[in-house]
Amino acid sequence: MDVRVILVEPKLEENIGAVARVMKNFGFSELYLVRPRSIGRKALTVASHAADVVESCVITPSLEEALRGSDIAIGTTAKLATSERKHLRAFLTPRELKNVCRGKVSIVFGREDVGLLNEELRMCDVVVHIPTDRRYPVMNVSHAAAVILYELYLGSKTQRKRERGHLGKPASFEERAQFYEHLLQFLDKIQYAEHKKERALLVVKRIFGRAAVTSRELRTLRGILRKAIWCLSGEHAA
Amino acid sequence: MDVRVILVEPKLEENIGAVARVMKNFGFSELYLVRPRSIGRKALTVASHAADVVESCVITPSLEEALRGSDIAIGTTAKLATSERKHLRAFLTPRELKNVCRGKVSIVFGREDVGLLNEELRMCDVVVHIPTDRRYPVMNVSHAAAVILYELYLGSKTQRKRERGHLGKPASFEERAQFYEHLLQFLDKIQYAEHKKERALLVVKRIFGRAAVTSRELRTLRGILRKAIWCLSGEHAA
Repeated sequence: MDVRVILVEPKLEENIGAVARVMKNFGFSELYLVRPRSIGRKALTVASHAADVVESCVITPSLEEALRGSDIAIGTTAKLATSERKHLRAFLTPRELKNVCRGKVSIVFGREDVGLLNEELRMCDVVVHIPTDRRYPVMNVSHAAAVILYELYLGSKTQRKRERGHLGKPASFEERAQFYEHLLQFLDKIQYAEHKKERALLVVKRIFGRAAVTSRELRTLRGILRKAIWCLSGEHAA
Repeated sequence: MDVRVILVEPKLEENIGAVARVMKNFGFSELYLVRPRSIGRKALTVASHAADVVESCVITPSLEEALRGSDIAIGTTAKLATSERKHLRAFLTPRELKNVCRGKVSIVFGREDVGLLNEELRMCDVVVHIPTDRRYPVMNVSHAAAVILYELYLGSKTQRKRERGHLGKPASFEERAQFYEHLLQFLDKIQYAEHKKERALLVVKRIFGRAAVTSRELRTLRGILRKAIWCLSGEHAA
């Protein structure tokens, strides 16, 4: 996904640096600043390993110029519409953004205190609002960026592929069946009451199901069963 | 959702304040600090309207104490397992967390530089990793908190509905600890190799964590362990 982050009149350098850092965390690097108050050492320090994002930022005198070349402009707001009539602030959630993203996507964040002005929101194709507690909905700009860029990152196709198998290969039906078979042998060995076996098996099955148990985990557990059965067989004493 | 945020040895006050702010944005307020370097004015300034969260934080001398009263402990890591063998860092994504959250949920964040130590991750039932660009995966702690608390906040609405009784009461921290103790007794009885015990325990812990194992399920499993230990003790032959 081709993302540009635009900060309109950021007051604190720390916020510029913090946004740069979270951009790089999610693989984005194109930063535009509209009339920043100042930009220098503090921003670089907070950016940490994303100093390159700060250093290569583009400074423009207007939001209009910063938006040039965008295919879709997404404005952000913590303030909600006061009625359904207020189309200006009719919003998508961060999770819904991936459905509207195409080409060059610009995400526009407003000032620390007053956010984006109505005329700036009007320049945006879409408005996004992060669901928050109504008692304190105003997020720090870099936190809002973290949530939105995280959603965009997840929404991109490469990511969807990468996510699979993060826990390791889930155990196949056969592997799980073999485990249950093994467990039954063990229950036999300890003379576990016949009428309770089915329930015990079901408990284990449910836990494994909810946990999406992996092949590797099953191998460890079967190692324990093997050792236990061996001990119970008294073979080790022979 | 009843969430506690635990910061282990935070170095920068600014980060404490920033975490407090994002907590309040998502309606959470219980902040624990384990051995913070300092805490004062800077934290309050960055916290902005969440100064009350900073002011009411609880300071503890150890992670163990900070975790007291938790039903599930979720550790965070930017570092991934180097192979599928590393059960310690087998992780869930932030979006998957809502499926394991029940009762008092503690989210544990590590130090700015080295994160959580292995022994600290071992105290956690589940590990969460935020999918990031592999070139710069280390997020600022308050950005990581933003993403995770955002997901918990979104999950809490659907979660509240799901929670009602469908699985039964989740096992408490103490019940799980008792089970692990019982399991260790069993591993001793079968002369399970000393160097493999910790790994076996971790495998079980991770499976239980992901499955949000219930009290009732643990009772069934402990019944099996009890029977097995009894058999192995040869008492039944007497």
